[in-house]
Amino acid sequence: MASMARLVMKFGGTSVGSIERIRNVAKKVKREVDAGNEVAVMVSAMSGETNRLIDLVSQTSTMHDAREYDVVVSSGEQVTSGLLAMALQELGVSARSWLGWQIPIKTNAVHGSARIEDIHCDEIINRFEEGQVAICAGFQGIGSDDRITTLGRGGTDTSAVALAAALKADQCDIYTDVDGVYTADPRIATKAAKLDKITYEEMLELASLGAKVLQTRSVEMAMKHRVKLQVLSSFEDLPGTLVVDEEDIVEHQVVSGVTYTRDEAKVTLQQVADKPGVAALVFGTLADAHVNVDMIVQNVSEDGKATDLTFTVGRKEMDLALSVLEKLKSEVDCKAIVGDPNVVKVSIVGMGMRSHAGVAQTMFAALAEKGINIQVISTSEIKVSVLLAEEYTELAVRTLHTAFDLDAE
Amino acid sequence: MASMARLVMKFGGTSVGSIERIRNVAKKVKREVDAGNEVAVMVSAMSGETNRLIDLVSQTSTMHDAREYDVVVSSGEQVTSGLLAMALQELGVSARSWLGWQIPIKTNAVHGSARIEDIHCDEIINRFEEGQVAICAGFQGIGSDDRITTLGRGGTDTSAVALAAALKADQCDIYTDVDGVYTADPRIATKAAKLDKITYEEMLELASLGAKVLQTRSVEMAMKHRVKLQVLSSFEDLPGTLVVDEEDIVEHQVVSGVTYTRDEAKVTLQQVADKPGVAALVFGTLADAHVNVDMIVQNVSEDGKATDLTFTVGRKEMDLALSVLEKLKSEVDCKAIVGDPNVVKVSIVGMGMRSHAGVAQTMFAALAEKGINIQVISTSEIKVSVLLAEEYTELAVRTLHTAFDLDAE
Repeated sequence: MASMARLVMKFGGTSVGSIERIRNVAKKVKREVDAGNEVAVMVSAMSGETNRLIDLVSQTSTMHDAREYDVVVSSGEQVTSGLLAMALQELGVSARSWLGWQIPIKTNAVHGSARIEDIHCDEIINRFEEGQVAICAGFQGIGSDDRITTLGRGGTDTSAVALAAALKADQCDIYTDVDGVYTADPRIATKAAKLDKITYEEMLELASLGAKVLQTRSVEMAMKHRVKLQVLSSFEDLPGTLVVDEEDIVEHQVVSGVTYTRDEAKVTLQQVADKPGVAALVFGTLADAHVNVDMIVQNVSEDGKATDLTFTVGRKEMDLALSVLEKLKSEVDCKAIVGDPNVVKVSIVGMGMRSHAGVAQTMFAALAEKGINIQVISTSEIKVSVLLAEEYTELAVRTLHTAFDLDAE
Repeated sequence: MASMARLVMKFGGTSVGSIERIRNVAKKVKREVDAGNEVAVMVSAMSGETNRLIDLVSQTSTMHDAREYDVVVSSGEQVTSGLLAMALQELGVSARSWLGWQIPIKTNAVHGSARIEDIHCDEIINRFEEGQVAICAGFQGIGSDDRITTLGRGGTDTSAVALAAALKADQCDIYTDVDGVYTADPRIATKAAKLDKITYEEMLELASLGAKVLQTRSVEMAMKHRVKLQVLSSFEDLPGTLVVDEEDIVEHQVVSGVTYTRDEAKVTLQQVADKPGVAALVFGTLADAHVNVDMIVQNVSEDGKATDLTFTVGRKEMDLALSVLEKLKSEVDCKAIVGDPNVVKVSIVGMGMRSHAGVAQTMFAALAEKGINIQVISTSEIKVSVLLAEEYTELAVRTLHTAFDLDAE
């Protein structure tokens, strides 16, 4: 930050994964303090620690009490907050740890996936005036039942953004193991480029479409409270990607990024009799079984009497979806119910899409030229997603990256 | 317990050292609940966990902030409390975890070795009426600064006794990895017998003289509040040793137990000039350096002009003691200052000693008969301690065990 500002810095599990790395984080925080900034830090559990704790819970109890789960699992962030406060003191920086119940970060009582309702940070602000850094344990709060709550996995991003909003911070820096948001996954698209800026809306689509840089909920919250986010690396000293308001970006690319997810599976009900109420029955049954459905397409079959009904569900839920649907088979009158986990959803995202016709057409043509068959399509105002056979993942991402002029020089 | 009672059960680190063992503890608790008792449980961190956390702190900071130390280290008991609550629920027993700040267990703000000042347990008692078991995280409280405090090592025994006092519990059962208090260390004296009952006063002497079954502070607190204690095994189903009021024991042995500690070292100032103020100077200097002195003896030397001044200090503090005394050497006018870490303090303890003359004489005679030289002696109303060369440890303990008729049949 150029001039004196109020800053929230968030460090994920790999960034605090060892004492050496915690020391490194302390140095980064000290630099911001030395520059005259008021700093609050939000920390995750040391990498591996949350999984270790969850494993203890799973070994103890199959149907666990979410309140006790929260008691156990929140201890990971507690440890990091104490250690980082010490590491800062070791560098001569005044710091203290704050647990969720101490700040307090008030949440509802939905243990295991609580939502933040209110953050009281007057005391943290008082201590900013004395030059003290607040080291806050992420992912946790205190419920209306006066017990520890956790926000669900990835909740530390959300904790950081919520605290930034409550503190009216000038910026919330999310330090992670990548150095920003890319036009595509650099492991697949070697010509992927880091974006300097991206809008909340685009980031939200990218997050929910499989880019694992930021948690969807944290982006929603940043957008709602207009918290300026930056995604940057804990390990390199480089500017990252700013997530900002649309008006803060002068010129929009038509497409800002290409993303993909292998987390979905395709389910097809073949030759469903064309009678009313079938879709309601199918999707109602899935909803009752807590199976989320994403993309849906219904094709008219040749004879006009029966149609194929195709949709996607979470890959882990495919077997559950197939088994509940199998029981409906006679009722919906279809020939077969077929699951296919070997699919990928590839998406293009961009604010510029709204004002440019023919974006979907360009996408379909580019894929067709490579002989890639599109199985399902879904669109929103700023994205187009297609479902493909999984084997085309890399080819499709690279093809679209080139087709929309995203390749770095 | 025979009829319905209010019970505090305390389980140490080895008793909850794995998920399997936590399940075993849950079964023991369930049995007490099924018998109609109201039960509060006090748990330690899983064995090894506190050391792991302390190690993280040591790696982070050499001169650590005790408040942050407490944040980190208290997480161990937090995890166990959640896991045990789940394990009980798994057995169909209503249970919830209580952290120190939730009960609350109010302490002073001396972080790292806080003292309990007050325990509010109305809500725990309310829930007893609903049949709920309280699983309390040991070793921790909340300071007057509203931050987590810890009671220092072994503090979970003290937490348990303090809670038993606050709950006006009928008994406080301390489950551990030994099955009671023995007349001597069974690893050394194979004829050692488990005591059915022992008085608070005897237990206190044994605890401070090296028997590691109970923390000294917890026994003091039990004696002060007349909390009936039982020491028993987590792993076997046997009655343990009851620690009770003197009047609850019908017949006193002259000597109840023989104990030893290798934690002390001997320091001798040879041929100290016999002038006033020397002892005050020596022990004042050691006190300023925070070196505790235990046994002291001053012998008149042959010529009557100079004496040897001998005393014991903690073995770990011997080098410190020698170095601060070396600086005084010219002032105290002595020939040499010599340290000897290879000593053992062997003690006999018993309420019956008060009414029996000649106990010390029997002790000295028995040791002399085996050719064991006594270096220093100290006595109190219910104990006699002697300092011996370390190599005589086993022989001295066995000899005294036999001499005072403690050998099991």
